[in-house]
Amino acid sequence: MSIAKPSVPRGTRDFSPEKMKKRNFIFDTLREIFKKYGYEQIETPAMENLSTLLGKYGEEGDKLLFRIVNSGNFVNEDLDAFVNLSKLLSKSPEEDELNTASNRIVNTICEKGLRYDLTVPFARYVVQNRNEITFPFKRFQIQPVWRADRPAKGRYREFYQCDVDVVGSDSLLNEAELIQIIDEAFGKMQVNTVVKVNNRKILTGIADYIGEPERIVDITIAIDKLEKVGWERVQEELFERGLAEEAVKELKSIVQVVEMNNIEKLDFLEKVLFASEVGLAGVKELRTLLGYLELLNVKTAVEIDLTLARGLNYYTGAIFEVKALDVEMGSICGGGRYDNLTGIFGMPGVSGVGISFGADRIFDVLNQLDKYPQDSTQGTQVLFINFGENEEKYCLPLVSKIRAAGINAELFPGSVKMKKQMAYADAKKIPYVALVGDNEMQQNVISLKNMQSGEQTTITLEELISKLKG
Amino acid sequence: MSIAKPSVPRGTRDFSPEKMKKRNFIFDTLREIFKKYGYEQIETPAMENLSTLLGKYGEEGDKLLFRIVNSGNFVNEDLDAFVNLSKLLSKSPEEDELNTASNRIVNTICEKGLRYDLTVPFARYVVQNRNEITFPFKRFQIQPVWRADRPAKGRYREFYQCDVDVVGSDSLLNEAELIQIIDEAFGKMQVNTVVKVNNRKILTGIADYIGEPERIVDITIAIDKLEKVGWERVQEELFERGLAEEAVKELKSIVQVVEMNNIEKLDFLEKVLFASEVGLAGVKELRTLLGYLELLNVKTAVEIDLTLARGLNYYTGAIFEVKALDVEMGSICGGGRYDNLTGIFGMPGVSGVGISFGADRIFDVLNQLDKYPQDSTQGTQVLFINFGENEEKYCLPLVSKIRAAGINAELFPGSVKMKKQMAYADAKKIPYVALVGDNEMQQNVISLKNMQSGEQTTITLEELISKLKG
Repeated sequence: MSIAKPSVPRGTRDFSPEKMKKRNFIFDTLREIFKKYGYEQIETPAMENLSTLLGKYGEEGDKLLFRIVNSGNFVNEDLDAFVNLSKLLSKSPEEDELNTASNRIVNTICEKGLRYDLTVPFARYVVQNRNEITFPFKRFQIQPVWRADRPAKGRYREFYQCDVDVVGSDSLLNEAELIQIIDEAFGKMQVNTVVKVNNRKILTGIADYIGEPERIVDITIAIDKLEKVGWERVQEELFERGLAEEAVKELKSIVQVVEMNNIEKLDFLEKVLFASEVGLAGVKELRTLLGYLELLNVKTAVEIDLTLARGLNYYTGAIFEVKALDVEMGSICGGGRYDNLTGIFGMPGVSGVGISFGADRIFDVLNQLDKYPQDSTQGTQVLFINFGENEEKYCLPLVSKIRAAGINAELFPGSVKMKKQMAYADAKKIPYVALVGDNEMQQNVISLKNMQSGEQTTITLEELISKLKG
Repeated sequence: MSIAKPSVPRGTRDFSPEKMKKRNFIFDTLREIFKKYGYEQIETPAMENLSTLLGKYGEEGDKLLFRIVNSGNFVNEDLDAFVNLSKLLSKSPEEDELNTASNRIVNTICEKGLRYDLTVPFARYVVQNRNEITFPFKRFQIQPVWRADRPAKGRYREFYQCDVDVVGSDSLLNEAELIQIIDEAFGKMQVNTVVKVNNRKILTGIADYIGEPERIVDITIAIDKLEKVGWERVQEELFERGLAEEAVKELKSIVQVVEMNNIEKLDFLEKVLFASEVGLAGVKELRTLLGYLELLNVKTAVEIDLTLARGLNYYTGAIFEVKALDVEMGSICGGGRYDNLTGIFGMPGVSGVGISFGADRIFDVLNQLDKYPQDSTQGTQVLFINFGENEEKYCLPLVSKIRAAGINAELFPGSVKMKKQMAYADAKKIPYVALVGDNEMQQNVISLKNMQSGEQTTITLEELISKLKG
């Protein structure tokens, strides 16, 4: 067997015990809150049929799908594709022709791909299980997704998404509840955030108002870039996309209402969009949502941001995005309302709203802020030093009793040098070390060393348990 | 966009909220116990380089790996492979030739595969991170694995493994601790089990004793089948494998000591294997292990089973297997000691011992026994009926207070028909429904309906909270 220098594939990562503890703090916090609001967990397979995935993420997305080779002798499955390729190769093929041929072969030998997000699998799940599901269906899902993207700082080929959605209800209570969840989650993680909200109906109203009702997609894509590139570039792009000068001018007067507060914005829009039924509906929805949030005493700042469009075309109502205030970082959570998620699988008319927490970015934010609660990263609480066969036999039942009390405890396996055992406690950041030698055994006590202060006390087993449980 | 009838790939599954709650009970139970014994969680990527995976699971295993197509135009990567294939296709190729050609193409266009188990990625992790790891390294890992096996009842192409291992320590305390973990885990899950133990050194000693020291692998493979096919078939196979008649006869006299208890077995073996140093070492190890278990008051029956070999060749010491007593099911947990796990990646001399819990089989066992603790499968505890705008506004802060007390609570989103709201509570198995109409609002109380008994009581918010917290 040849000896390979082991490594992980580009863009993927191992998670060490220390990282796992921190990540689990994030996942556990979210999971607990999702449940408190009545959301239930589901899981879907890592692999989906390519027929489920293809065409759902645009042309670019299709290219980023990881495809899995069918088992068995696949050459037989579509001999024509290979014959075609072989003919091609006997000439001097163009790059284009080769691409087409290799795509056809991939389509022949691959029927499955790794999931690209949790949204499409969720839509597939809802349609496939429609008869077992009671609507409104409040579900959450915390699983990795895979994208064959070019790896870069903060961009991985495998990363976790934490999605929480409710489908089959168009009540704005759901929108309010999701913002409550954001408020509670980041409150618990001690991250100061601002929630930016917008409404697609307002964007549609604006498109109507500036006389370019068909260009809503162009407009939102352009607006989405406002913060990044500034109005000059956005304006340029809008011209390039063929918007009239008058329309662009009117657009500027609307989207640039940044100095106003939420209520002023809504009042302003209500006046400007008086002729657009859908625009006014959007304004009303935002008013209702803000009303709920006041009633619910949501502490996080919520800010209407008309430049928020999140690129995605499928939002039909509310649009959300969460930014951390004290750390330089892209959005750490986002989502919105969509009215036709399941339509792609032949089940129209199911309205839903959801958000997705970006676990990897939140992990980075928490690491920068260094705000993990101490107990969330605590592993073993006490290590018993192993002095030899007799001491080992004496300690084993003690350790069992300590564990029975719900305390994480270890007895070092084997009576190696004291120094090595202490180094082990240090490396694992175990806060207490218990030393039980002849004296302690005779007096039925434990010498307990505080690894941080170095202080050593002699206590009974019961005292040790109540100390570590406290 | 064409409308596909949605489905999951063959051999994979969706997990509904109900199934997830039950599975999470298993995972949470294991996780909590692993931590209590000082094991720390790691995660590795779903994809590994094929160079990491190939050759580790035998020829059959290599075929069962799911391979992932490289991104980009792969035809360019090994034009020769395709030219070769195209030449082949222009003749009438033999099945064999086609297989070789398609294998070469797969090897050309795939550099990555999905992990097949958690053991090889763990070995890769240890070697790759050897400088950051403090040994002994006690780790656990709960992640899915993928195998391109033919799907069948109870056999899936995606399933979870729950592995717990300690590497870098040869103390038998570790073996004892793993059996404690088994004892505690199945105790908590209320599954009656028997732990079968064996020791590879005893098997080696037996091979020495019967004069076939080189045939240990043949012998263990045969012995492994004893329970399934009976001695006659095993004997036949041993002859087929070329063992001498005398050797087979002596083997029978040893492995068929089923009537003896553990101590009798060890005494018997100590006599029979007196001339085999390694055999006696195995006997001594089992004695030490049983001594630890007595000291630790392990409740699960532990039974020495010389027929236990678990097919795998890499065990060098203890071998474990757990069977459920009240349910027909294969082993639900198993493992053993291996002395050269990391050797395949160029890091020899690291001894380890570990076990793997089969989450899917345990799930099936618990479903058959129907022994999930009620609180483990409890989702939302109380649903507030939505009677309309005023009631909604009144209820929202109440629901917030209930959630703040750590109780899972919902307000139905929207004031749809009462019947539909009650059906929702029924379907989600929500035990209490809260009704707050005009009367209740005036009197500042809540009408609480017990969904199981149908009983309805009028209580205050504080009473409701203390009732549901209890």
